[in-house]
Amino acid sequence: MKLKVYADRMSQPSRAVLIFCKVNGIDFEEIRIDIAKRHHLSPEFKEINPMRKLPAIVDGRFKLFESHAILIYLAHVFPGVPDHWYPADVFKRAKIHSVLDWHHSNLRRGAAAYVMNTVLAPALGLPLNPPAAAEAEKILSASLSMIESFWLKGSGRFLLGGNLPSIADLSLVCEITQLEVLDEEDRNRILGPHKKVGQWIEDTKKVTRPHFDEVHKVIFKAKERFQKQRSMGATNIETEPKLTLQSKM
Amino acid sequence: MKLKVYADRMSQPSRAVLIFCKVNGIDFEEIRIDIAKRHHLSPEFKEINPMRKLPAIVDGRFKLFESHAILIYLAHVFPGVPDHWYPADVFKRAKIHSVLDWHHSNLRRGAAAYVMNTVLAPALGLPLNPPAAAEAEKILSASLSMIESFWLKGSGRFLLGGNLPSIADLSLVCEITQLEVLDEEDRNRILGPHKKVGQWIEDTKKVTRPHFDEVHKVIFKAKERFQKQRSMGATNIETEPKLTLQSKM
Repeated sequence: MKLKVYADRMSQPSRAVLIFCKVNGIDFEEIRIDIAKRHHLSPEFKEINPMRKLPAIVDGRFKLFESHAILIYLAHVFPGVPDHWYPADVFKRAKIHSVLDWHHSNLRRGAAAYVMNTVLAPALGLPLNPPAAAEAEKILSASLSMIESFWLKGSGRFLLGGNLPSIADLSLVCEITQLEVLDEEDRNRILGPHKKVGQWIEDTKKVTRPHFDEVHKVIFKAKERFQKQRSMGATNIETEPKLTLQSKM
Repeated sequence: MKLKVYADRMSQPSRAVLIFCKVNGIDFEEIRIDIAKRHHLSPEFKEINPMRKLPAIVDGRFKLFESHAILIYLAHVFPGVPDHWYPADVFKRAKIHSVLDWHHSNLRRGAAAYVMNTVLAPALGLPLNPPAAAEAEKILSASLSMIESFWLKGSGRFLLGGNLPSIADLSLVCEITQLEVLDEEDRNRILGPHKKVGQWIEDTKKVTRPHFDEVHKVIFKAKERFQKQRSMGATNIETEPKLTLQSKM
């Protein structure tokens, strides 16, 4: 039975898992769970993932959720996956775990909360929250500085000094790519100072093309929608049809 | 050269790593980094962990931080560690990764923020924050419900239905044990409804004794101090000598 990947391409960890499968030629079926339509809250999906979060997989009788755990599992069980994605070397592997654990309380926390409190909240019928956005920007900027100065140090193009990407590169770059939906000025203020981060994002896109672009199409469409809303001015936003986008967090 | 573990026993992930080493007879040197004395911000410790967080290890020339990554690494490289702590079986291992990833944004997020906003804040010279505490309690209680109804389902005594503990049991139980410093009424309200969680905590303590109790001594001393402060009444707290405790988050 084919691997099933339950995903919504608006969710950054869903995108990481989809891209990983496509890049590595894993034969899978993508099952779209539309968060905007609250399909992740259905009783059927609760049977797949009781946490009601995306992504999740079903491989034969085996069910799994949490994107990092899924990426590691897929790298283990599909023999065609090259070693660089999740190296067998215990030291390299330990460093990848370290980046992925760090990601949860740093880059993910900052990026998801910033996007929610500057862009997504009105689409969810919630007020914007500038103090929460300011707090999230601090965490996000500190995380980007740490990627620039520490995780990307060394001569390699990828995290931990590698010349080929690991699951950590894919996971973190998909997280950062959600910033595309921000106002251009905000995005430039946050990402602009981090030149190495910018180059690393480009390098990660390059080695995962055309799948990276294809899976991210939905984000660029959302970016256009939000830009249009912004150009219509804040006073008109409430009269726009409400978008109900949610990230995983 | 002996493994070096940089830890502060007031930090819950530090305690998990120390207990793991002791239970498994790993020969190591504990290097106390006193967060209250801001030793984690020293230039010397920055060389060990640029994130300035605890715990961190140095094993020969290899440096590592993030407690889950450390636990996995130690289970890999010390041959005496029994398989149940981090099973070689790919399916069991994937489930352990899933629990540990879930932990970051759920149990840890709720527990650390609740303790900070109800107990630790005044000790750090910050005001208590009841709305933040209420929000954290929701996350914490939802996490405990999920442990009770999902992660502890099955016939085994431990997470994922096991009859022997894994690194996930140790990590999560150390997280929950920080709730000892709470006001008794708050603690009972939060933990009381989760009988299976209570039994699992006892079972995890039992299989890791005497090390669990020894490493947690500092928490029970802190509990006494906070109880004394509370019995002196809120108006007197500010005149008490300021404690400067910090959890990892």
